[in-house]
Amino acid sequence: MPVITIETTPLTGEQKEQLITGFTKVASEVTGLPASTIIVVIHEPPADNFGVGGAQLSKMQH
Amino acid sequence: MPVITIETTPLTGEQKEQLITGFTKVASEVTGLPASTIIVVIHEPPADNFGVGGAQLSKMQH
Amino acid sequence: MPVITIETTPLTGEQKEQLITGFTKVASEVTGLPASTIIVVIHEPPADNFGVGGAQLSKMQH
Amino acid sequence: MPVITIETTPLTGEQKEQLITGFTKVASEVTGLPASTIIVVIHEPPADNFGVGGAQLSKMQH
Amino acid sequence: MPVITIETTPLTGEQKEQLITGFTKVASEVTGLPASTIIVVIHEPPADNFGVGGAQLSKMQH
Amino acid sequence: MPVITIETTPLTGEQKEQLITGFTKVASEVTGLPASTIIVVIHEPPADNFGVGGAQLSKMQH
Repeated sequence: MPVITIETTPLTGEQKEQLITGFTKVASEVTGLPASTIIVVIHEPPADNFGVGGAQLSKMQH
Repeated sequence: MPVITIETTPLTGEQKEQLITGFTKVASEVTGLPASTIIVVIHEPPADNFGVGGAQLSKMQH
Repeated sequence: MPVITIETTPLTGEQKEQLITGFTKVASEVTGLPASTIIVVIHEPPADNFGVGGAQLSKMQH
Repeated sequence: MPVITIETTPLTGEQKEQLITGFTKVASEVTGLPASTIIVVIHEPPADNFGVGGAQLSKMQH
Repeated sequence: MPVITIETTPLTGEQKEQLITGFTKVASEVTGLPASTIIVVIHEPPADNFGVGGAQLSKMQH
Repeated sequence: MPVITIETTPLTGEQKEQLITGFTKVASEVTGLPASTIIVVIHEPPADNFGVGGAQLSKMQH
């Protein structure tokens, strides 16, 4: 049942796989629930779509 | 006011329409609120972005 | 894998059950995915926590 | 149609009203959409439920 | 710590910047928290992916 | 900037701390971003509010 969602700028296929494996392992160990019940959803808005401290992330990365 | 969000792998235009109609009908009937107050938002991350049981959905579909 | 979330003001136990059954049925029929893969999450913020057209829902209900 | 959600530690009734009014005004001005189409949802998890830099917010506030 | 998310149909770069600046200003003023702690995330599903009153937004815009 | 949200049934304070630490570690290692930029939000709806396969989680736990 636990559903884990991450908002992050675009990732590689390998990074997505590592996030899914890592988050599922942590959630299963902490809650005691079987990994099979755990869902991970990755959202990848572009840096333009993130604001930190009132500025666009895309403008902070130059 | 009810806001319904679904995370699902990419759909056809027709499927989106059916989900919007169906979810709105259920929510209106159960809550007694008019359909006009009900919002549905569909997120369509690719199968790579979903993890089930620690594995990427895209790797489970082969 | 589909995850359906609803934001709505507090409901009865029976209403929650009906939403879960109804949303799962619609999602399974439209996507063709088995019901067993479908997760529903219900959030019940109080009416104070909803804004519609710039006003608190709690102030619109009197 | 725009739906704005904020995750923040518990607020007063007055603060909620101000957030709803302020967010709706900004969204309407920027998108050109009428305020009546804009929904705001406020989630108020306790400080224990927030992590910043790997630590619980509740532990950072002492 | 406050995280503000908006679901809206696609925007221009300038509109995103204005939303980020505006939401951060409102949230900082209302909560008293420094702007540097405030995160904004913008989701831009297409009009096909929004339902209002049981109909697709894309079909209401013609 | 990454924001990680988990939907799970109520947890102990210690479990929350472990989830925050664990998720932040995984996200930092995989993305290469400093832990200080990573936010975790924990939502704890009751078991009544979760549906799995069309049934309420609370009814599956007896």
